[in-house]
Amino acid sequence: MILTVTLNTALDITYKVDALRPHTSHRVTEVTERPGGKGLNVARVLAALGHEVTVTGFAGGATGRVLQDGLLGVEGIADALVPVTGTTRRTVAVVDASTGDTTQLNEPGPLVSPAEWAAFQEAYAHLLGSAEAVALCGSLPPGVPVGAYATLVRAARAASVPVLLDTSGEPLRRGIAARPDIVKPNADELAELTGSHEPAQAMRDARRRGAHAVVASLGARGLRALTPDGAWQAPAPARLTGNPTGAGDSAVAGLLSGCVEHLPWPQRLARAVALSAATVGAPVAGEFDAATYERLLSEVTVTDQAGAA
Amino acid sequence: MILTVTLNTALDITYKVDALRPHTSHRVTEVTERPGGKGLNVARVLAALGHEVTVTGFAGGATGRVLQDGLLGVEGIADALVPVTGTTRRTVAVVDASTGDTTQLNEPGPLVSPAEWAAFQEAYAHLLGSAEAVALCGSLPPGVPVGAYATLVRAARAASVPVLLDTSGEPLRRGIAARPDIVKPNADELAELTGSHEPAQAMRDARRRGAHAVVASLGARGLRALTPDGAWQAPAPARLTGNPTGAGDSAVAGLLSGCVEHLPWPQRLARAVALSAATVGAPVAGEFDAATYERLLSEVTVTDQAGAA
Repeated sequence: MILTVTLNTALDITYKVDALRPHTSHRVTEVTERPGGKGLNVARVLAALGHEVTVTGFAGGATGRVLQDGLLGVEGIADALVPVTGTTRRTVAVVDASTGDTTQLNEPGPLVSPAEWAAFQEAYAHLLGSAEAVALCGSLPPGVPVGAYATLVRAARAASVPVLLDTSGEPLRRGIAARPDIVKPNADELAELTGSHEPAQAMRDARRRGAHAVVASLGARGLRALTPDGAWQAPAPARLTGNPTGAGDSAVAGLLSGCVEHLPWPQRLARAVALSAATVGAPVAGEFDAATYERLLSEVTVTDQAGAA
Repeated sequence: MILTVTLNTALDITYKVDALRPHTSHRVTEVTERPGGKGLNVARVLAALGHEVTVTGFAGGATGRVLQDGLLGVEGIADALVPVTGTTRRTVAVVDASTGDTTQLNEPGPLVSPAEWAAFQEAYAHLLGSAEAVALCGSLPPGVPVGAYATLVRAARAASVPVLLDTSGEPLRRGIAARPDIVKPNADELAELTGSHEPAQAMRDARRRGAHAVVASLGARGLRALTPDGAWQAPAPARLTGNPTGAGDSAVAGLLSGCVEHLPWPQRLARAVALSAATVGAPVAGEFDAATYERLLSEVTVTDQAGAA
């Protein structure tokens, strides 16, 4: 199975309002709610691609129960979330129906105790025993040490399980030094990590910091990869309109599935770009339009950039 | 006991953010959550005044469970909420720490089936048997007939239980025609009901529409009452700064407690005004500062307005 780790899972709530006007009262016209957090989105896409996936991380309180109930019905996903005393956070996305814009409110997440963090690491070590690959995704909840991802990367490497890291800020900075197989920063995360806004230079810097392969998701400019085997670029298909939330998570799913299927890098990138674009066309993160994906997969062009390495 | 009815109970969530900027992403710095809905606020204030209170209405789903768990610890309140298949709504108040302003997002509430509405009416009829007074509070959830409050007012009157109605719009228009003992509209609700923005005239109209007594809450101008026994005015104490949410609910609690204690109208109004003002000084609806209440109670002046009747 493929393991995805979401330490700060979330119950993702979406509110539709006619028009968001600060400091007034709004009637919410439509409420949707689903299990969220980057690793859970990755898991849904992997499951839709036909992989067996196990999700772990933390879940607790009333929202944790709702989140875990929501995972029950998803074929191909096994729930190995570790209980916490605190309450799983909510995220609220307020969609303004008059403009289509979204205003996001993210709760910080439960306070994780040292004992709970230790219990997670034990569960994680056990799960690595049957994992073909692992993705470490998203922010850290309060209480989890900022070097958490470095610890989890080292454990995966000690168990010879390929590990992909998708986070930002200091957890990325610490985690990358533990030499993950793949990091997948977006343009902002890459610039924050390296201080450089020039992707090629920043990606070389990220490799020097410890990542074996760096795949940067550059929004409408698509993906660029710098790996031990070479460098490639895969532009995004034209006309990306829709909801970009989850596009990066779908790229992670594409890269990870390509990894366990031992695809060459150009095919991994083509899959990741096509999945990302097919996710932008879907209403929510963690879903993609299968027909769009199949069509785009045959259209994506991956260019060798031998000079970049 | 005093019975309060909240057909559209809510889990009231408050988010503090540094500054609300539409169409951006926000880290919520503080999350609080408590059982809400106008009748539940009224019940908390009545319980704090030493009355035995029973709360009814609907509760369902995960948020319903959290709401009912939150009532367990409140002394003096008995939970007689009726289960529904749908999920109790949330309300989200986003407090902008830079300005103190609040942006409110209110979910519509669960869809109540005809069988659930019938089950509620049966429970309500039973509860009326031991009620000294009943307050009918707030909006109606989807599925409950717009004439619901008229039905509930008639049942209370048939059981000789004094009934106070605090709602708005069409449910108020229909409910007032069933001749409740007291209605407590605010200025906007009164104007919407009667078409008049002149309180004295609008209150006479509201009595003609069926209310035995009309108590209008006019914000900083305090309360005005038009009753079979006379007309009175009680201005709000000076310097009302704080959170006005729940001030109207505290006024309802003051009026209802005065009613069951058989206080004369001027004392009921003094209590209602003092409770309202003491609620504005408290951080959340359904709570009031006891010392402020005691002090204000002795300061409030109630003026006879014999001419207004």
